[in-house]
Amino acid sequence: MGQRIVFPRAPRIIAASTVAGTKECEGIVGRYVETALSDDMFGESTYEKAECKMLSHVIDGAIANAGLRREQIDVIISGDLLNQIISASFAARDFSVPFLGVYGACSTMAESLALAAALIDGGYVRRAVAATGSHFASAERQYRYPLELGCTRPPQSQWTVTGAGASLVAAQGDGIRITSATLGKVVDFGITDVNNMGAAMAPAAADTILTHFRETGEEADAYDLIVTGDLGALGSRILKDLTWEKGLDIGEHHVDCGEIVYNVLEDEFQGGSGAGCSAVVLNSYLRTKMLAGEFRRILFVATGALLSTVSSGQGESIPCIAHAVTLER
Amino acid sequence: MGQRIVFPRAPRIIAASTVAGTKECEGIVGRYVETALSDDMFGESTYEKAECKMLSHVIDGAIANAGLRREQIDVIISGDLLNQIISASFAARDFSVPFLGVYGACSTMAESLALAAALIDGGYVRRAVAATGSHFASAERQYRYPLELGCTRPPQSQWTVTGAGASLVAAQGDGIRITSATLGKVVDFGITDVNNMGAAMAPAAADTILTHFRETGEEADAYDLIVTGDLGALGSRILKDLTWEKGLDIGEHHVDCGEIVYNVLEDEFQGGSGAGCSAVVLNSYLRTKMLAGEFRRILFVATGALLSTVSSGQGESIPCIAHAVTLER
Repeated sequence: MGQRIVFPRAPRIIAASTVAGTKECEGIVGRYVETALSDDMFGESTYEKAECKMLSHVIDGAIANAGLRREQIDVIISGDLLNQIISASFAARDFSVPFLGVYGACSTMAESLALAAALIDGGYVRRAVAATGSHFASAERQYRYPLELGCTRPPQSQWTVTGAGASLVAAQGDGIRITSATLGKVVDFGITDVNNMGAAMAPAAADTILTHFRETGEEADAYDLIVTGDLGALGSRILKDLTWEKGLDIGEHHVDCGEIVYNVLEDEFQGGSGAGCSAVVLNSYLRTKMLAGEFRRILFVATGALLSTVSSGQGESIPCIAHAVTLER
Repeated sequence: MGQRIVFPRAPRIIAASTVAGTKECEGIVGRYVETALSDDMFGESTYEKAECKMLSHVIDGAIANAGLRREQIDVIISGDLLNQIISASFAARDFSVPFLGVYGACSTMAESLALAAALIDGGYVRRAVAATGSHFASAERQYRYPLELGCTRPPQSQWTVTGAGASLVAAQGDGIRITSATLGKVVDFGITDVNNMGAAMAPAAADTILTHFRETGEEADAYDLIVTGDLGALGSRILKDLTWEKGLDIGEHHVDCGEIVYNVLEDEFQGGSGAGCSAVVLNSYLRTKMLAGEFRRILFVATGALLSTVSSGQGESIPCIAHAVTLER
């Protein structure tokens, strides 16, 4: 048995919902996002509460967009970047629905989609919501420095996306089909620079993508797009080098959510990151294009850096992971 | 569809492994644990690295006890209490095996067992390791105060177990069968005292247990034991009150891992807690007794408090969750 699991009944994403911050909505996401925030605090008193509210908002939004009620949902699978995934746990408190908390850092959208698809394909639940999100200000103060310090950001850094996305996965209905998932291994290339997530995560993305193509026997052009989560500009370049070295040319088909989410402005440097990055891009822009028939087959590969401030403070390098999900229309 | 999912092919726990600290081995666990530590640092330089090594040790131990090699394992499902579940992520780095990170605080043993059983029962993987652990010293300094401060512990507090446990779940082989899982909802009764986890978690345990018995139509005596994770003495009493009020008398069948893990000494007050508490008790004491035929049917209900220091600092109460797994011999 390899790393790829196949879903013969192809559970489908019958509805989705997204919310994004002011800066995010200036970019490509702005035209496709469901709720565009005019205030990144979302009416809350703290960044963390705003992040939690975004998650709750998109979970509710996906359920409403499917024309369902909360009690018709069998499980919510969610996680986020904050310590003890408080955004997801506190968002789940608003719903009287079974909850499975997951942690895969920025790979959470793919991990939660894969688990939702498995639980539905296996017949254990009928409808599941997979959701994640992130907030620039809560991530900065937890992982780096509080914004109030006004620290200078180095050129290899990325900007955590303020936003959240939810997919409602069901056994039946019209939507994007989830046909397989390739579960990733933890890969650590010894990167210790906590500002260089792209370089840390690219080897994990390469490992999962190479495994996926080796196990399927497909060529890169079997997909309209091979979408990574938030490698950013530098990480994307490293990924293309790493896969090319192993004989897989993904160049023409590859796009990174972090690279496309913002207009190219100097202060984001390598682009976007955060669990919300791929969650928003997948559930707004990519979903719209897939439903319009523009993209018919996507390999969605969300990547996560599994560090904490404690592990970095104790001199550890950054272990990373990437999970891939095949989406078909 | 209710909250309970049934596994018709009954995946089984074909092997397990446990490790526990010096204080823990003075209690009931000491006679059944596989690796009894003589030094809670486990030869490492920090508490966090010791916690990670314990997890890695039991994952490897479970694989070895099953007579398997690492490459025969299809997925490791694990999480822990530390920020960004670094113990699990860094432990998974030692294995070239797909990894799914989960976060359910002290409910992790039940959540990871339920997911492992679903992935195996559905035919997606053949063998999965479900594992979790905790360390008294890393938990104290992350959630409360560093030990060096010598803070006084209040009488409603519990003592985080230093230990880890792993279950190897497989589609075939001899072992304890996992026949169903009842996935819990997030329940918040408004408790804000971070030293009173038992009171915070008891309503979540009651909710899941009442749901389980309502959906199965069983009586409490259908089980030899109804085992909760780490409610402690006070939490267990609250649980029995809450379920009794709703017409379910679990009194004779209920036992709490936190209540039995230590000898009754004054400094632990309500007993043990932590993700490692139920993981160690299940995979050592309970497993041995089940394999010996002493207990034939157990409802294993691990409970988790989904707070963080940030959520508590922002005035939030403590949302909790409990997942139940039916184990049969």
